[in-house]
Amino acid sequence: MREGLKEMEQRLSELSFETSGEGFTDITPAINTWIAENNLKQGLLNISVKHTSCSLTINENADPRVLKDLSAYMKALVPEKSFQSINGQEKPVKYLHNDEGPDDMPAHIRSALTCSCLSLSVDAGQLVLGTWQAVYLWEHRHACHLRKIVLHAIGEVSSKNQGLANSSISMEMSRRNASKLNEIILQKNNPDAWASDEGIETNVDLLIDRIHELISEDDQASKE
Amino acid sequence: MREGLKEMEQRLSELSFETSGEGFTDITPAINTWIAENNLKQGLLNISVKHTSCSLTINENADPRVLKDLSAYMKALVPEKSFQSINGQEKPVKYLHNDEGPDDMPAHIRSALTCSCLSLSVDAGQLVLGTWQAVYLWEHRHACHLRKIVLHAIGEVSSKNQGLANSSISMEMSRRNASKLNEIILQKNNPDAWASDEGIETNVDLLIDRIHELISEDDQASKE
Amino acid sequence: MREGLKEMEQRLSELSFETSGEGFTDITPAINTWIAENNLKQGLLNISVKHTSCSLTINENADPRVLKDLSAYMKALVPEKSFQSINGQEKPVKYLHNDEGPDDMPAHIRSALTCSCLSLSVDAGQLVLGTWQAVYLWEHRHACHLRKIVLHAIGEVSSKNQGLANSSISMEMSRRNASKLNEIILQKNNPDAWASDEGIETNVDLLIDRIHELISEDDQASKE
Repeated sequence: MREGLKEMEQRLSELSFETSGEGFTDITPAINTWIAENNLKQGLLNISVKHTSCSLTINENADPRVLKDLSAYMKALVPEKSFQSINGQEKPVKYLHNDEGPDDMPAHIRSALTCSCLSLSVDAGQLVLGTWQAVYLWEHRHACHLRKIVLHAIGEVSSKNQGLANSSISMEMSRRNASKLNEIILQKNNPDAWASDEGIETNVDLLIDRIHELISEDDQASKE
Repeated sequence: MREGLKEMEQRLSELSFETSGEGFTDITPAINTWIAENNLKQGLLNISVKHTSCSLTINENADPRVLKDLSAYMKALVPEKSFQSINGQEKPVKYLHNDEGPDDMPAHIRSALTCSCLSLSVDAGQLVLGTWQAVYLWEHRHACHLRKIVLHAIGEVSSKNQGLANSSISMEMSRRNASKLNEIILQKNNPDAWASDEGIETNVDLLIDRIHELISEDDQASKE
Repeated sequence: MREGLKEMEQRLSELSFETSGEGFTDITPAINTWIAENNLKQGLLNISVKHTSCSLTINENADPRVLKDLSAYMKALVPEKSFQSINGQEKPVKYLHNDEGPDDMPAHIRSALTCSCLSLSVDAGQLVLGTWQAVYLWEHRHACHLRKIVLHAIGEVSSKNQGLANSSISMEMSRRNASKLNEIILQKNNPDAWASDEGIETNVDLLIDRIHELISEDDQASKE
């Protein structure tokens, strides 16, 4: 082995998440914990779901209204019972596969339109994501389900002591991310703010917007 | 190299599949055969298509009506010749790219809305999938095509003898999967059952439902 | 280490691309340059975006009208301000998340319907793609943005001298790809041909179609 080269290793685990019906579970913290527990320093991480009526998606981690809009849009795009052509001219088509309830076939279609697997980088013992990104498990069924997710990494692993050091850094870093900031601010003011404000600007919203702007200067330099 | 560490190797192949026009080809058995032939024990497998008018998708492997619904929905979502806004207010927009037939541009869009590549785990010499999952090549063109798929694995490879052992285990396991079970039961009763029953419950359906329930107790624990 | 085995290494970089508002940036040449610079011979390459309002997609590299149709379709599928059910019966639903402009929430949805990450193979120092494929960064916002993309490869790296040799081969090969051929032909005739011809067949179109046919005999053997 050439000098300076690190040995490649792999880690494979199955994690379970209990969903609470249609909607999003932010699995980013669980993934970062798994990375820390496995002392993974740098590597490729593949995430796959073992089901065909839930899926994975990367989206905004700060404003819960993004997730509400995503849900509402997906329900409009893939309705229950029957669907019509986007051109609107033809008759509604009923789903043939309806033995498991009216939400089952739409869940299969919604899964096909999003992702069953995602590959991301791990660097410095952390998932490499943009400031405003989170990895979500998207439940497409009405009922709660126990969903199995496979985490599989190939990369360089730290020695155990280094691993423990990384782990605390990783927890420190995840504490500083946008979603957490948002959560802390909201909880201090009104824990149900997003759920109840129906889009009306509150002081909390304005504060979040300001933080948004400050971080995005670094993250999303845009011209004009 | 640290004791107990397995060497990482990679295997890269191009497989060809003949599609029979718009629809699904279950490529899971071919992938598992490739894994066995390459003596791959544990690793990451990337699957990519070399075309822009067919795609990859993971979906239900048991009830062929799921695939029929998926096809019908996709045709309604991305129609031929022209499309309208989902809001229905605006005029139909004709595709500009229509030199290769009315099914060509919809095929490009349908590919963009699904997947050109999928990454999955290999463990114990088998693709890691849920009980009800299969990997499909989704042909979006009307005509039959020879489609090239790239299989690329990085992971740990067994010695040849172990590989042969794995191979027979892998074949044994693939014989026991849900799709095969379904197929065997159907063929014994009526090979065209799914195609002809148009959703009417038959004894075969009820038997499959029972197997469904038995396996899902292990696979998809759900509450309420 | 077993004889004949190559050591696996990994390379991780962040590249920035300036987009010019809604539309496509072909990042294939930049990826191939990065592969050459890193002397990567064979390996898995993961590409991920660090944003939630732009995405990645693999599509046709020859006819710019494909990209125009993709854009137009996506605008019709995920409209601004509000959306209706594909069934057309229900009232329009307004986006709740609209603080960052009317194009922001549609951009998040369009990202969810396409890809935030793609995994592809590298072989012989080149991205493994079909003749007609390119990797695009798809900007979904109106304004120009600086977009960060993570390139992460695990595989076998050539020694430096071999790397340099590969690099020139890689440049030679990328010069011969369909998109470049197309570009060269167009520039010699009329640099704005695709932009101005609005789908009317020109001599250039016919010439491209002929090349299309010649290459596709090798690439997309189809029956009937």
